[in-house]
Amino acid sequence: MKKLAILGSTGSIGVSTLSVVERFPEQFRVVALAAGKNLSKLKEQVVRFQPEIVSLTSEADAKDLRAQLPNFRGEILWGSRGLNAVATHPDAEMVMAALVGAAGLAPTLSAIRSGKTIALANKEALVISGELMTREARHYGVKILPVDSEHNAIFQALHGYQRRQVKRIILTASGGPFLHRPARELLEVSVEEALKHPTWKMGSKITIDSATLMNKGLEVIEARWLFDLPPEQVSVIIHPQSIVHSMVEYVDGSILAQLGIPDMVIPISYILAYPERLPLNHLPSLDLAAAAQLTFFQPNFDKFPCLRLAYDALRHGGTCPAVVNAANEVAVENFLAGRIRFTDIAELNEQVLCAHVAQLVTDLDVLFEADRWARDRAHAVLKRMQPRAVASA
Amino acid sequence: MKKLAILGSTGSIGVSTLSVVERFPEQFRVVALAAGKNLSKLKEQVVRFQPEIVSLTSEADAKDLRAQLPNFRGEILWGSRGLNAVATHPDAEMVMAALVGAAGLAPTLSAIRSGKTIALANKEALVISGELMTREARHYGVKILPVDSEHNAIFQALHGYQRRQVKRIILTASGGPFLHRPARELLEVSVEEALKHPTWKMGSKITIDSATLMNKGLEVIEARWLFDLPPEQVSVIIHPQSIVHSMVEYVDGSILAQLGIPDMVIPISYILAYPERLPLNHLPSLDLAAAAQLTFFQPNFDKFPCLRLAYDALRHGGTCPAVVNAANEVAVENFLAGRIRFTDIAELNEQVLCAHVAQLVTDLDVLFEADRWARDRAHAVLKRMQPRAVASA
Repeated sequence: MKKLAILGSTGSIGVSTLSVVERFPEQFRVVALAAGKNLSKLKEQVVRFQPEIVSLTSEADAKDLRAQLPNFRGEILWGSRGLNAVATHPDAEMVMAALVGAAGLAPTLSAIRSGKTIALANKEALVISGELMTREARHYGVKILPVDSEHNAIFQALHGYQRRQVKRIILTASGGPFLHRPARELLEVSVEEALKHPTWKMGSKITIDSATLMNKGLEVIEARWLFDLPPEQVSVIIHPQSIVHSMVEYVDGSILAQLGIPDMVIPISYILAYPERLPLNHLPSLDLAAAAQLTFFQPNFDKFPCLRLAYDALRHGGTCPAVVNAANEVAVENFLAGRIRFTDIAELNEQVLCAHVAQLVTDLDVLFEADRWARDRAHAVLKRMQPRAVASA
Repeated sequence: MKKLAILGSTGSIGVSTLSVVERFPEQFRVVALAAGKNLSKLKEQVVRFQPEIVSLTSEADAKDLRAQLPNFRGEILWGSRGLNAVATHPDAEMVMAALVGAAGLAPTLSAIRSGKTIALANKEALVISGELMTREARHYGVKILPVDSEHNAIFQALHGYQRRQVKRIILTASGGPFLHRPARELLEVSVEEALKHPTWKMGSKITIDSATLMNKGLEVIEARWLFDLPPEQVSVIIHPQSIVHSMVEYVDGSILAQLGIPDMVIPISYILAYPERLPLNHLPSLDLAAAAQLTFFQPNFDKFPCLRLAYDALRHGGTCPAVVNAANEVAVENFLAGRIRFTDIAELNEQVLCAHVAQLVTDLDVLFEADRWARDRAHAVLKRMQPRAVASA
């Protein structure tokens, strides 16, 4: 019986994680759940899984939940203290880190320092603080297991092999909706067009990141830390069908690829049960014959400069990945709000990254400070951009 | 330093094996070589690798080699005694079983009984005597490691995982030159057309087997024994580009596939170094972007009945796989000689298999007897077929 704590239990990954727990009740028990503001869903989860601790963002919601569940015997906490209590629950062997954004950093680091195995679904944890997280994980002898579909594919294809046998890892990218659009037309694409992802259904931030290829760039950064490989050994290939979830090329020229249907339950279940595999007989098999064809292209770094920027940030090191991530959040937010053009996203990111002087990452505060600096700088750059965007609207 | 014996050193697999040994002289040493009739090539190999024993098919060739190599200090043997001495050389840890046809069975079995790790490239060993070989291997605690590209791919994709985690293995098949040819036209295809394999360059027997899909059928039989899976868990998918060399589908729906360039040095080096991987930097990387597209189709069992016959033979068990293999050798030989039509190959195989009463496999002699019976029966069937073939010529 593996005991789990879940950070972000009411989000998509949290809900899928609980669906696996529910399907295999003899293998998993949930001891702690942290959610944000979705009180009604957390209430259902508490009733069904009977954890020992739950946490919400606000004190008001926590008190509301207590009032609604007078017979619940566990603790109901809130805020950063609550998150921390969930992340470090003494009974939890594994912490599913599925919070969205920088909010996940501190609790994930606490979980590492408490010796928990980390099931990592919080992209920002490694994008912003990969160097710090992996250093701490080594120090505490903790495993970080990737839930994200691409990194999970690589993790599966690496299992049983040694890192010295790896020539490179190859992240697949759908290429987004603008793969075949001429570069000059990208100047005028609308928010609606950018939100049409060809294969996966996801939130709007990550869908825009898929369209700019920044999502793949951030995954390159994650992969660099997760698999402890230099940027030269992390490559990207465009694969519009998203059936091959990623690959590992070994020193002998063999490539091992993981393929599957686009359902996050597969990577989640793999990580929860690792090194076992759970029989997911309720899922359809991947029907390769129905898939018609799989195609692959080299990414175009000129047309999608965000991908190149991610490599640049990695090479500059230190706080640079955190900076490019923060700048990109500001850029995407402003693109979604109709304030800047699609191509301005990369330009804003580039201007912020160019202006940054990389700092050594000694603790989370250095990263939060870099994040703040990048956002301020992005807003300053934005002011100079806006007139152009208005002109194009 | 791993010490190797090679059965079939002057054939294509033997030569590639020695090229790997030559590239990694600190990791391998060749202690015994067995060849057939290619005296001049064996002589070169003896001079270069200085084995302790060599063997040729005939006594005359062995004496000739001795005369040509008066200073060679090792033994020069011949015939079945020579093969056996190579297969059981006391210093050899691994035996590369790369003889062609049934000639490889007895020495491979001797190697197993001497506790050698078997690098298996001799297809017939498992097709004819899979049940016996794998039973003996279990008894002697010996590993049989597959060199054949498809089985090697599966072996790579299984490494680190457990058999109970496997839903099925999926052998890829190029589909041969008649994949898109209407079934009714197969009646009239010429030997030349059948010899045009789309991807791999191979001998004429195996190329015809690829055109009838019997080659894939024989591989299904091999896979059944090699990976100890029932026929229902061994499936075939048509993949004309032969870039995905085969796949494993796990119980959670994940598929792990091995991809690579079509060069046998890759699987050979994998098996020689297993569980290590050798850096084959002289080989080009697989360029997936240049590969344009990968396609997959369900095999058509009606158009290619040989594939179905192989499954039938497995289900009937005992001597049936040996019988269908022997019948097929007679059929292909006669097709290549222009004596029967392409579609007669499957018909002949089917008639022989239908007439056979499966025997329990207690030793090699039972299998040799079944092989003889099948050839006799095939020739009898052939006599009734010939007029039709002449009519179509």
